[in-house]
Amino acid sequence: MFPENSSKYWSRDLETMNHVDRAELILKRLRHLLKYAYQNSLYYHKLFEEIKIDIDSIRNLEDFSTKVPVTTKAIIRREQHEHPPFGRIICGSDIAFIMASSGTTGKPTYIPFSKQELDRFAEHHARIMWSFGIRPRMGILIAAMFTMYAGAWGVFLGSNRLDLKIHPVGAGSPGATANAVRTAQDLKPEVLYGTPSFILHLIEQVQKIGLNPPKDLGFKIVFGSGEPGFSLQPIKKKIKSCLGEDVKVIDTGSMVEAMPWMTNAECEFESGMHLWQDIVYTELVDTQDMSLVSFGEEGVLTYTSLDRITYPLIRYYSGDVSYWVDDPCGCGRTYPRLPKGIYGRIDDMIVIKGVKTWPSVIQEILEKSPYYNGEFRIVLGEKESREYLKLVVEITEESMKMIQRDGSASDKIVEDLRRAIKNGLGVSAEIELAKPFSLERALHKSKRVIDERTISSELAKLRLHGDG
Amino acid sequence: MFPENSSKYWSRDLETMNHVDRAELILKRLRHLLKYAYQNSLYYHKLFEEIKIDIDSIRNLEDFSTKVPVTTKAIIRREQHEHPPFGRIICGSDIAFIMASSGTTGKPTYIPFSKQELDRFAEHHARIMWSFGIRPRMGILIAAMFTMYAGAWGVFLGSNRLDLKIHPVGAGSPGATANAVRTAQDLKPEVLYGTPSFILHLIEQVQKIGLNPPKDLGFKIVFGSGEPGFSLQPIKKKIKSCLGEDVKVIDTGSMVEAMPWMTNAECEFESGMHLWQDIVYTELVDTQDMSLVSFGEEGVLTYTSLDRITYPLIRYYSGDVSYWVDDPCGCGRTYPRLPKGIYGRIDDMIVIKGVKTWPSVIQEILEKSPYYNGEFRIVLGEKESREYLKLVVEITEESMKMIQRDGSASDKIVEDLRRAIKNGLGVSAEIELAKPFSLERALHKSKRVIDERTISSELAKLRLHGDG
Repeated sequence: MFPENSSKYWSRDLETMNHVDRAELILKRLRHLLKYAYQNSLYYHKLFEEIKIDIDSIRNLEDFSTKVPVTTKAIIRREQHEHPPFGRIICGSDIAFIMASSGTTGKPTYIPFSKQELDRFAEHHARIMWSFGIRPRMGILIAAMFTMYAGAWGVFLGSNRLDLKIHPVGAGSPGATANAVRTAQDLKPEVLYGTPSFILHLIEQVQKIGLNPPKDLGFKIVFGSGEPGFSLQPIKKKIKSCLGEDVKVIDTGSMVEAMPWMTNAECEFESGMHLWQDIVYTELVDTQDMSLVSFGEEGVLTYTSLDRITYPLIRYYSGDVSYWVDDPCGCGRTYPRLPKGIYGRIDDMIVIKGVKTWPSVIQEILEKSPYYNGEFRIVLGEKESREYLKLVVEITEESMKMIQRDGSASDKIVEDLRRAIKNGLGVSAEIELAKPFSLERALHKSKRVIDERTISSELAKLRLHGDG
Repeated sequence: MFPENSSKYWSRDLETMNHVDRAELILKRLRHLLKYAYQNSLYYHKLFEEIKIDIDSIRNLEDFSTKVPVTTKAIIRREQHEHPPFGRIICGSDIAFIMASSGTTGKPTYIPFSKQELDRFAEHHARIMWSFGIRPRMGILIAAMFTMYAGAWGVFLGSNRLDLKIHPVGAGSPGATANAVRTAQDLKPEVLYGTPSFILHLIEQVQKIGLNPPKDLGFKIVFGSGEPGFSLQPIKKKIKSCLGEDVKVIDTGSMVEAMPWMTNAECEFESGMHLWQDIVYTELVDTQDMSLVSFGEEGVLTYTSLDRITYPLIRYYSGDVSYWVDDPCGCGRTYPRLPKGIYGRIDDMIVIKGVKTWPSVIQEILEKSPYYNGEFRIVLGEKESREYLKLVVEITEESMKMIQRDGSASDKIVEDLRRAIKNGLGVSAEIELAKPFSLERALHKSKRVIDERTISSELAKLRLHGDG
């Protein structure tokens, strides 16, 4: 039923396949999917008719990338609005489970799945969890919201398939963190799953109550999804320095539209997320012309889940940004990798004085500072027609004590942080220090950017129209 | 795979069995369980040795009730404390899932289950959900916390077994109610599950945003568990008057220690909870001598889950209070019933001027008043060595307007409520009116009693010892 515990692979054939064979396998599945969608989804049927795609003319993966248009969130939204509840994308009525995009704003979009698909996701997630060292009979603490958010359910399915001992502590409700810590103390599961926000929060709690994690808790593998973070070295280091140096810190995840979502995942070598292309075929595309970008370049992750048939999404343009490489990995898997994980979203991109960056890049810089206490805010403003970047940075209790002993220490801390940002980002930032634990912690996903430029330009517009 | 949709029963044989045959079936299973526990659970082995039980001498259900001692929460706590994590009660190491008692206070107790048991629970829950009208392919909104709390998971397992369309909206986190309402509007599932607190809160929301439920929402069956409420006529009436007169309002539930917990459940006739004795053998026992009480009498629900073997709990003395009857039900099932559901817990019992009552009894009286807005608090106090009962009652917006127009209306409302309490309870109460929506709503389970007598007696004790 399972490979040997010592086996590195769940399926050596699939995972170590050479590129030519894999491309052939993916192409076969893609063509099957395209035909299925054409025959069963009214949306894709009409689309393929309109743009006159001849599926048989797709002879290689480049053909697929150039001939088949992307599907966007806006399309799903429009379909669900005009043809409620699921839009004309849907292929079957055999629905067992409905998840939703955790859409940061506005109305959610709903993604339905059949029982057979859930079984396949379970298999895929188990296979991927195997790659970062999870083995049957381990205990897992699932510290994530079991709502229509896909994250927790994917882990649940994979854990169930792997015969793990599941501790579904949840997250998001009052007392959830304390509860997760208590359960970990009492039952010592080896594996912890949550959003990076939640896990960093849990670590703060562990430190606050003065536990000795390698002894008091039993974690050997920690994996997160839902936001950037776990691919970043300083974050890995922070978690290991709290939970134990040999604890693996694994970045995983894409999104419900690409379900099974764990097809972007680090292996036990922690060297960036593999793209498990034979499960979800993932392209990195240019934001301008949607063409495939070369290895080494940055692009938007575009997903085609190869065996989803209830709600097929073909070339789903995720808006998530990363860069990819095709270097060999110590694990022997031949999948391409995202060395820094998913570090931003198109909508989270910060352009300041012409330089383009992401909250996660700033986070990575701050995490290296000994003064930084794990939370910050980005304020983008405009003064006398000049843009500025301000960072409100929470400092550690130790830094706070330094300042209380000697007021001038705060100048030194500000100066250190300013230099780190200037060096890392190439842009100067105004630094404002915040007291330890004064900034609110997000329990699910963090929101860190306040763009006052938009606010002020909107105010300006209002004034022009005389409504202010 | 499923009975015909028109079939009233999942298993006619089991559900309409005559008493003699059922007693024989239960006895057979009980003896099997006792032997299994004796052979596999160190706790039960030692216990049976100590009290010198000869399992073969248990020849009928009366023997079982008199010869086998109850298991209490205190015993589980002690076992888990002395032999962490699960105590010597545990029989197997084949654990797939761990739930916890939602213990209102203190450290949780953990109850582990195997995969095979979860499959059996799914079967049992499906069978019971069938009895209140749920059929394959219906949609279900599970608006309950998916944490280690058993409620949501039991419903999930049963729904999965019944091939329902599952909408796992969750509960307890900020925005959960609004989210549940939006999902119901968009996807119109026929079935709603949640705690009575949460469902009553959801109804408030529905009314507040001015929806027309029979059209805007699709609910046909609403079932709740986790606290008293859904067996009470005024509560049923309130929900039906909001969601539609033909919506079924079904009371279900016991506790994780008796898992599968849905073995106390109303059928579509809504005439009190059936006790599905061939799944969980349930006794009502006297609080003093633990003897079985007769039909028509009140007692403490004492559960023996008949096919749980990972963590068997034999005669689990739940602390939940009810009275039972054995009248025939319109559905033809031959199980005994709890006509008023579970209306109290031993620890929630209120004794005021020698009269014993429960928060749910007071709730039932208030729910009949046109002035009552759905939330209240009970304050028990002592003035000059005399006990008093004060009720802080939230009034409707309409009542509030009446008072604003004419100050004397408040006297009339207070007087009406006082008379209703006196008539229903036999005890006089002081009534204090609270503004609409001024009392906090519980999203999971309500806490309504403030006992100032304890506080003042504790203060008195402190004073005696000179610590005050």
